[in-house]
Amino acid sequence: MKETLRKCFKKIKDLHCDALLVSNPSNILYLTGFSRHADGYLLLTREGGVFYFTNFLYAAQARGLDIWKVLVSRGSIFALMSEQIKKLGFTRVGFEAKHLPFLEYEKLKEHLNAAAVDFSQTIDVIEEIRSVKNRTEIALIRESTLISKEAFDYAGQICRTVRTEKQLSIEIEKFLRLKGDNEIAFPTIVAGGKNSAYPHHEPKADELYKNFFLIDLGSRYCEYCTDLTRVFFEGKISPFARKIYDIVLKAQELAIKTIKAGVSCRQVDGAARRFIEEKGYAKHFGHGLGHGVGIDVHELPYLNPRNEQILQEGMIVTIEPAIYLEGKLGVRIEDVVLVGSRGCTVLSA
Amino acid sequence: MKETLRKCFKKIKDLHCDALLVSNPSNILYLTGFSRHADGYLLLTREGGVFYFTNFLYAAQARGLDIWKVLVSRGSIFALMSEQIKKLGFTRVGFEAKHLPFLEYEKLKEHLNAAAVDFSQTIDVIEEIRSVKNRTEIALIRESTLISKEAFDYAGQICRTVRTEKQLSIEIEKFLRLKGDNEIAFPTIVAGGKNSAYPHHEPKADELYKNFFLIDLGSRYCEYCTDLTRVFFEGKISPFARKIYDIVLKAQELAIKTIKAGVSCRQVDGAARRFIEEKGYAKHFGHGLGHGVGIDVHELPYLNPRNEQILQEGMIVTIEPAIYLEGKLGVRIEDVVLVGSRGCTVLSA
Repeated sequence: MKETLRKCFKKIKDLHCDALLVSNPSNILYLTGFSRHADGYLLLTREGGVFYFTNFLYAAQARGLDIWKVLVSRGSIFALMSEQIKKLGFTRVGFEAKHLPFLEYEKLKEHLNAAAVDFSQTIDVIEEIRSVKNRTEIALIRESTLISKEAFDYAGQICRTVRTEKQLSIEIEKFLRLKGDNEIAFPTIVAGGKNSAYPHHEPKADELYKNFFLIDLGSRYCEYCTDLTRVFFEGKISPFARKIYDIVLKAQELAIKTIKAGVSCRQVDGAARRFIEEKGYAKHFGHGLGHGVGIDVHELPYLNPRNEQILQEGMIVTIEPAIYLEGKLGVRIEDVVLVGSRGCTVLSA
Repeated sequence: MKETLRKCFKKIKDLHCDALLVSNPSNILYLTGFSRHADGYLLLTREGGVFYFTNFLYAAQARGLDIWKVLVSRGSIFALMSEQIKKLGFTRVGFEAKHLPFLEYEKLKEHLNAAAVDFSQTIDVIEEIRSVKNRTEIALIRESTLISKEAFDYAGQICRTVRTEKQLSIEIEKFLRLKGDNEIAFPTIVAGGKNSAYPHHEPKADELYKNFFLIDLGSRYCEYCTDLTRVFFEGKISPFARKIYDIVLKAQELAIKTIKAGVSCRQVDGAARRFIEEKGYAKHFGHGLGHGVGIDVHELPYLNPRNEQILQEGMIVTIEPAIYLEGKLGVRIEDVVLVGSRGCTVLSA
């Protein structure tokens, strides 16, 4: 955490800010270990100060952590934060433009402008630091991935008796929560038959389609997520489903082969997309190839046809090519990959 | 839904806007029935037009609903929305200031200002309509509340064998999901012993405290939430815990007696708070007395010492006085109440 904070302080200086106001709960968790579910804001100063602002509901727990100064608001938390910023004599404070709602921005700006403080937007300052994982984070995501792989085995065992998408998702999530954190990475997708053609299908209380279903799941372990998708065939596989499956699997292999530090997100996406295009299914693969995974299940970097960002050693990303055929079926295969200097490691292998 | 949309169109006219851009997912669900988890924006025009903007991931499902015109972005969804607004010849469009992140506001404003469209902030336009429930909504919240009450009975049965906060929360949520929607209203709080003094405690894998624990839970039923809290005593109750419990219960009774249409949120809050104050525990009850409940588990109106808003017939609110004694215990009793013209109905009675 100390090392990470140091990186933040340096970035704040590079931005010519006196401080950065952090409102993204995942960034607050990353920097402090404090719950993503608390109402609170973190103020990081360029000189290494760390202030946490919260209300009555979280005051007792926040005080239990001794890595910051905790200020508890009784009235407006925006007034409290502005007062503190003025007291520190700051003239330029950054905020997280992707995460601060317009109304909160307005309230803060009003207070701060009155004190001649420049309130200035920043983008992905901490998210960029988060995108490269350290050794601990890699171990936690690996563990989370192992639990999630076990969940697929478990789903395979119980799917003969648990016959609805909804029931299967409930059983899977119970498994993930008992083995990992109480909270999971995201609501489990169980999509039987034609429902698999909807990328973000929500499990229904209908019967599971007998021959084919898709499961997209992810546990959280010590706050670190994973994200995996598998398709399940029961009994005989139709030649058509087999063909689609093989295309998606081959596309994934091609993408994984290209991954190493120095390669762009666009290049990796292209390796899978070109193959799917050659096979005539380009328009049925309408989303990016993958995304970073960590404290958030979707985080930097994003692998898509437009992103020129260069992969770095220590980034962990999903690789999830897919083909969605409305009214028929959808196939998505998703694995989690650690970027290395000369190649990559598939954590979910 | 039609009736609700009519109310929106009227409000848009009253605000002298040509249209309102809705980004709060709960508002979109309320007006269209479409998932709160989709990425999308709704544009309501004063003349009754309803446009939904989304991306590839949700396009197929969105097209399945025929109450709007669906526009699917391939590139920037902000460019697509701005183009549509320009095409319609609008000069003033409202947005939801509590829900639109600053960066999205900036992107839209840039496009719109170039076309001389005034992009203007609104607050709680649809949230105010949502705060008064119709007959269907009342029935759904009542059903959700009944399921949640059953969950307390279930928790009482299994708490002798399920001995950790985490395990108990997992079993409770499985129960809630099997009886209600797959999604629940909020993560269940199970707080044993001293942990009950944290209003928003997250269940731990520790042993349950043997004599005392607090459970705060809520199911979702056809998308409508409820929110209830009970404390459980096992074996002999200490006279001190009994005393605190009786104060909180009496405070709740006093508040419930004051509830009817025409009374202010502040007055109801005051009825409970004064009693707790008289007993010497004012500073241990640091949050509001309650909140509206509906598609969101926390919504308008908010019952607290500062809110002068007047209760209306058909509002549904929680009444949850509490006393938190750090290092000892916390007691919160939370019920859900329907505001009537001459009194109220406790849905969780």
